[in-house]
Amino acid sequence: MRRVILPALLVLLGLPALLAAPPARGDPGMWTFHDFPSELVRKQHGVDIDKAWLDRVRASVIRLANCTASFVSPDGLILTNHHCSESCLDEHSTAEQQLVKNGFLARTREQELRCGTQVADVLAGVENVTDKVDAALRGLDDQAANDARKKTLTQLEQACEDASRHAATGALKCESVTLYQGGQYWLYKYHRYDDVRRVFAPERAIAAFGGDPDNFQFPRWCLDMSVLRAYGPDGKPAHTPDFLTLKPEGPAAGEVVFVAGHPGRTDRLLTVAQLLELRDVYLPRWLQRASELRGRLIQFGKTGPEASRIVEDPLNSIENSIKVRRGQLDALLDDRLLAAKRAEEAALRARLARDPQLAAATGDPWAAIATAEGVHRELDLPHTWIELGAGFNSALFNYARTLVRGAAERAKPNTERLREYRDAALPRVARRLGAPVPVYPQLETLTLSFSLERMREWLGPDAPLVRQLLSRDSPDTLAARLVIGSKLADPALRKQLWEGGQSAIDASHDPMIELARAVDGEARAVRKRYEDQVEAPVDAAAEKIARVRFKVFGTSEPPDATFTLRLNVGTVQGWKEGSSLVEPFTHTARLFERATGEDPFRIPDSWLAVRSQLDPATRFDLSTNNDIIGGNSGSPLIDARGRVVGLMFDGNIHSISGDYWYDAEFNRAVAVDPAIIFEALRKVYQAKELLTEMGAR
Amino acid sequence: MRRVILPALLVLLGLPALLAAPPARGDPGMWTFHDFPSELVRKQHGVDIDKAWLDRVRASVIRLANCTASFVSPDGLILTNHHCSESCLDEHSTAEQQLVKNGFLARTREQELRCGTQVADVLAGVENVTDKVDAALRGLDDQAANDARKKTLTQLEQACEDASRHAATGALKCESVTLYQGGQYWLYKYHRYDDVRRVFAPERAIAAFGGDPDNFQFPRWCLDMSVLRAYGPDGKPAHTPDFLTLKPEGPAAGEVVFVAGHPGRTDRLLTVAQLLELRDVYLPRWLQRASELRGRLIQFGKTGPEASRIVEDPLNSIENSIKVRRGQLDALLDDRLLAAKRAEEAALRARLARDPQLAAATGDPWAAIATAEGVHRELDLPHTWIELGAGFNSALFNYARTLVRGAAERAKPNTERLREYRDAALPRVARRLGAPVPVYPQLETLTLSFSLERMREWLGPDAPLVRQLLSRDSPDTLAARLVIGSKLADPALRKQLWEGGQSAIDASHDPMIELARAVDGEARAVRKRYEDQVEAPVDAAAEKIARVRFKVFGTSEPPDATFTLRLNVGTVQGWKEGSSLVEPFTHTARLFERATGEDPFRIPDSWLAVRSQLDPATRFDLSTNNDIIGGNSGSPLIDARGRVVGLMFDGNIHSISGDYWYDAEFNRAVAVDPAIIFEALRKVYQAKELLTEMGAR
Repeated sequence: MRRVILPALLVLLGLPALLAAPPARGDPGMWTFHDFPSELVRKQHGVDIDKAWLDRVRASVIRLANCTASFVSPDGLILTNHHCSESCLDEHSTAEQQLVKNGFLARTREQELRCGTQVADVLAGVENVTDKVDAALRGLDDQAANDARKKTLTQLEQACEDASRHAATGALKCESVTLYQGGQYWLYKYHRYDDVRRVFAPERAIAAFGGDPDNFQFPRWCLDMSVLRAYGPDGKPAHTPDFLTLKPEGPAAGEVVFVAGHPGRTDRLLTVAQLLELRDVYLPRWLQRASELRGRLIQFGKTGPEASRIVEDPLNSIENSIKVRRGQLDALLDDRLLAAKRAEEAALRARLARDPQLAAATGDPWAAIATAEGVHRELDLPHTWIELGAGFNSALFNYARTLVRGAAERAKPNTERLREYRDAALPRVARRLGAPVPVYPQLETLTLSFSLERMREWLGPDAPLVRQLLSRDSPDTLAARLVIGSKLADPALRKQLWEGGQSAIDASHDPMIELARAVDGEARAVRKRYEDQVEAPVDAAAEKIARVRFKVFGTSEPPDATFTLRLNVGTVQGWKEGSSLVEPFTHTARLFERATGEDPFRIPDSWLAVRSQLDPATRFDLSTNNDIIGGNSGSPLIDARGRVVGLMFDGNIHSISGDYWYDAEFNRAVAVDPAIIFEALRKVYQAKELLTEMGAR
Repeated sequence: MRRVILPALLVLLGLPALLAAPPARGDPGMWTFHDFPSELVRKQHGVDIDKAWLDRVRASVIRLANCTASFVSPDGLILTNHHCSESCLDEHSTAEQQLVKNGFLARTREQELRCGTQVADVLAGVENVTDKVDAALRGLDDQAANDARKKTLTQLEQACEDASRHAATGALKCESVTLYQGGQYWLYKYHRYDDVRRVFAPERAIAAFGGDPDNFQFPRWCLDMSVLRAYGPDGKPAHTPDFLTLKPEGPAAGEVVFVAGHPGRTDRLLTVAQLLELRDVYLPRWLQRASELRGRLIQFGKTGPEASRIVEDPLNSIENSIKVRRGQLDALLDDRLLAAKRAEEAALRARLARDPQLAAATGDPWAAIATAEGVHRELDLPHTWIELGAGFNSALFNYARTLVRGAAERAKPNTERLREYRDAALPRVARRLGAPVPVYPQLETLTLSFSLERMREWLGPDAPLVRQLLSRDSPDTLAARLVIGSKLADPALRKQLWEGGQSAIDASHDPMIELARAVDGEARAVRKRYEDQVEAPVDAAAEKIARVRFKVFGTSEPPDATFTLRLNVGTVQGWKEGSSLVEPFTHTARLFERATGEDPFRIPDSWLAVRSQLDPATRFDLSTNNDIIGGNSGSPLIDARGRVVGLMFDGNIHSISGDYWYDAEFNRAVAVDPAIIFEALRKVYQAKELLTEMGAR
C-alpha cells in the first residue's frame, strides 16, 4: 500500500475531528496489548498467546515516524519496509549517488549512514488516566471541555516525562492516547532511540516493483524491505535483548498469524452524516487538488534526470495517497457499507431509547454532529487553505510557520500553548528544524505556486487574504520571489532562529518568515472558529455516543486505531475476486514474466545478472486476512511461536475500505515472504554479514 | 463562462444518455421560435414580439461549432465572442505571430483570414416529423426501438437534404432534433456558410481579463468579442439582408431584453437517480482526470514561451470545463435543488397514479432508469476510456480513428452506419480531416501519455487492452513512438487516406492508424453493450416519463436545450450575494484598478497607451436574469425593438446550476456592453472601417 500513515495528507484533507471508534462486532480487530483477548483467540484459533509472548513482542516492535518496524537482532538491527525509510536514503543522495534508485549496503558498521530525522520508539509502559481527565472536565460546556481536555492531557504528559527522568526506566516520551472516543484516556510511555542508521536497502525498482499501477494490488512481486540499526547515546549499536527471529521458509497456507504494529487511524464509527460528508465533499475536493499536483509533479519530472530524481519521493507519496482516497471514496459508494452503517446506528439508537435515564443524559449527539458538519462545510475551505496550510505547500513555509508560531507559543505557559508546541513536543520540533533535509528550490516553487493558485481558485480572487497576497503578483512570481529570497533551507539558520526566540523572529526579514507572520493572524482566527464550532461539538457528541457504546459493549471490542501498538490475529489466505480465486502466495518465476523492461515494471540489473541462480519457485509475497491499515507498514507478521513469517507492506485494493469497516470477504493484507528476503540477500546482494546477524543458517 | 458547449468534455465525461427535459414551471425558459409564447410575454412584460421580429432575428442568428453569433451588417459581418473563435486565430499563429495573444485587425477585406474549420449555420426552416418516427417505432422493444430510431432519423435527414438540392432554397443541411425527450421529433434545416474569415480580435488579455479566476464571476471587465465575416461560394462577402444593429448606449437597468441563440444542453428533467449518479460518481471522476491534465498542461507551459503558447488554448478549455463541472457538483450538493427535484418527481408520479390507464401503459420508468444506472456504473469505465477515447487523448489518434472507422462505415448502407458516419455528416467529417490545423508533437505526446497512464490506472494493469498496449512499453515510450512515427499531422495524407477508403487504410502502416485498428474491435464491442444495456432502456424510460409530462404540460413549457435555436426573455438586473447587492453594470475605471500587471489580470499595452483618452464611466460588462447555458456564448442580447444591446459571454457562478434548474434568485447571465465595444474599436483599435460597417455614428 505503502501502508504508511499519511500525516501531510490528513492535513491537506482537513478532515473534521473524526471519531475514533470500535469496529463492528465480528471484526478481527486491532487489539491493544493491555486488553488482548487471549481467551477468545485460544477458543477460535487454538493458539495460546501468553503474557511472555506479548511482552517479548511488545518490546521488539518499533514505531517509526509513520510506520512500524521490529528488532531482528540483539544489536539493534531493525527490519522495516523500503517505503518507510526512503527519506533517509534521500538525505544521503545526490545526482551522482542515487541511493533510492541504486540501493545501499553497509558491509561494516562504520559504513552505516545516520538518518537525519528518523527516530525509533518502543513502548515501555502504559497508564490509564481516564479518571483524571474525567475529573478535570466535569460540568464544563462543550467549548470549555475541549480546551480543558487539551490542557489536562498536556499536564499529564509533562508530569509523566518529568517523573521518568528520575526513575529506573530512564527518560521516557509520554503521549496521551484517547481510546473509545473518550471512553478511555491513557498515557503511553516510549523509550526513544534518537540515532538510527541505514544498513541496507534494495533498489527501489524491486522494492516497489509495479509502482503505482500495482500499488494496493495482489498478486505482487515486491521486495519492500529495508534494514536500519538503532544506536545508543554512546554512539554504539543499541543492546536489544528483545528481538524477533525470521523463519526463513515463511508461513503455510491457512496458518494462524499475528500482526503487531502501529495502525494509524481507522474511522469505523463515524456517524452516517459524517460518512456522507466525506463521500460528497471532502474526498472529491481532496482528490481534485491532489490530482492536479500529481500532474504538475509528473510533468516537472520529465524535464530532466535531476528533476525526475527530486520529484520521485513526493510523487510516490501523492500517488499512494490518491489511491487510498480513491479507495475510500469507492468504499463509501459501496451500498453494502452505508446500509450496514445505517443499521448499526439505528440499532444503537434503539438500544439507547430502551434506557430512559441514559437517553435523557445523552440527548441526540447524532443530530449535534450533523449540525456541526454543516458548519464544518462552511469553515472547511479557509481552515484547509489557510490554517492547515494547503495554500502554502512548501517545506520552507512550514519551517517559517513553525519558527513564527514556536516563538510566540514558547513564551506562554505550557498548558496555554497550541498542543503541537507543548514542552513534550518541542524536542521533535527542534530536531526537525535542525535536520539537514535537502530543499529543492524548483520543487518548492512548483508546490508553492500551485497551492497559491488553487487557494485563489477555491477561496476566490476577492477573499481578503488572497487580495493581500496576490494583488500585484501572480502565484508564479510570488512563489519564485519567496523561494529565491528565503534562506531557511539552511539548518543552521533555522536553529539560530529557533533558539533566538521571539526577538530573533522579530528581527528577521526572511521573506518566508514575513509571509508566515502576515498570515498568522487570520490562520489562528480560523483555527479558533474551527475548534470552537466544529471540533468541540463533534468531540463532545462523539464522547456521548462512545459512552452509550461503551456501556453496551465495554472493552469486548477493540478501540479504533490511534497509531498505538496493537495486535491482530488472522490466517494466511487469498480471496475470491469475481469468479476467480486469488492464491495467497506469489513466486519468483512470475516476476520475470511480468517485467516489461520499463519503469515501473523494470527489474534491476543486479537481479537480471543472477537470474539463472535464483530459484523460480521461491515464495515472494503473500496475503493474509489480518485487519491492518496505514501505519502497519513494516509490521512483522508473526507465527504462534513468535517468529517473523512475513513483513507487511500493503493490502489489496479492498483493504482500503478498512478505514470504515472490516470486510471479511475481500479485505486482505500483503507481506513480503521471508523466503525471498533470504534468497535476495544471499544471491543478489551477497550480504553475508547481514544474513549472519539475522540468524541465517 | 466561456459559455461554449463542451463536446470534447461530454465525451471525456462519458455521461449516460441523459434526458433532455422541460424546466420546472416558472422558468424563464429557452423557447423554440416555432412555439414562442408571445402572448405570455406581452402579458408579463408588456412587450410585443410579432412574427416579423421573430423571422428577422431567426435569420440573423448564427450557429457556430459550439457557440452562437449574429450578422451585424448586410455584408456578412459576424459578431461573436473571442473565446468562440480562438481556433481560427491559432491556425494562423506561429511563435513569431501570436494572434491570440496580440489580436488581429483586417483593415481591408483582402486581409481577412480564412478559418480552416469554422462554418456558420443559419436556421432556414423546421419540420415536425414526430408522426413518422412514431410510426417506425411502434411495437418494438427497447433495444430494437433504439436501433430503429437512429435509422429512421438518418433516413429522414437524408431525404430532406436530397429534396433541398432541387428546391428554391438551395442545398440545406438537415438535422434531426429530439424535443421533450421524444415527445416531438423535428428536422431543422440550415443554410450553411462554409467560408468564414477573421476580421477582428482584441488581445486575449482584455478579451478574457481575469482569466480562470474571474471566469463565471461578475462583476467583470472583459471585451470578449471578435468579428468574422461569412463569404459565399463565389468567394465574395455573403449578402445578408437580415442582420442586427447595435445600440451603442446599451440597455437600461431593468429593461426587458431577449437572448436569441443556441443553448447546448440542459438536463433539467434527469430523474433523482440520475442526478445522484452524476453527483457521486461521474462528476468526481471527471474532475479528478481533468485536474491532473490541467496540472500537466500548466507545468508543460512553464518550460518555455513556445510551450506556453501552444498550451494556452487547451488549458483555457480545460479550466473552463473544470469550473463548469465544479459548479455542477456544487449545484447537486445544494439541498434546495435535490429537494425540489424529489418533490417534482413525486408530484408527477402522483399525477400518473391518478390515471390508471396511463399508469398501466407507463409502468415504472423511474425504476427502469435506476436499474440502467447500475449497469452504467459498471460499463462506464471501459466505455469512457476505450470507446469515448479518454484513454487516447490525441488529435492524431482522433484522425486515425475517424479514418479507420470512416472507411469501414462508408462501405455500409447509410442507415446501417454509426450515426456519426451517415451521409449527412460526411462533409463535415471530411472537412475536419482536411483542415490544416496545427498539431504540436510535444502536446500530443503529453496528452496521449497522460491518457494511456490513466487508462492503466482506472482499468487496471491487467485489463486485456492495457496488457496488449503496455506489456513492453511505458505510456511515455508508447506515446512518443506513436506521435513521432505518425504522419497524420499532414492534411494531404489524411485526405488521401479518407478518399482511398478501406484499401488505403488496409495498406497504411502509420502507427496511429495501427493503434486505431488494434483497439477498434473492443471499442465497438463496449459501445454496443453500452447502447443496448444503458442507452436503450434509459431512452425508452425517458420517453415514457416524457409522455406523462407532455400529457400534463403539453408545449406550455419549453423543451430542454438541444443546441438548437431558442429565444429567452429576461431583464437587466444584478442580484443579492449574501448581504451585498451586485450592481448590473461595470465601468472602465475599475478595470484599471483591478489590474495587477501580471496575467491573467494584465491590461494590454494598447489600452495602457490610450488610458487617458478612455472615458472611465463607459459601461463595460452587464448582467441580466436571462436563462442561458453553454452554447449561448456569442448570442446577441436584443431589446424589444430588435437592436443588439449586449453580447453574451458568460454567467455568474450560480448560473452553472442552470444545467439542472433555473434558480431565479441567483442565476445571472453576463454580456459585453455595446458601449465598450464602440469605445474600444474607436480609441484603442482605431478600427474606422469596422465601425462604419457596424453603423457607428
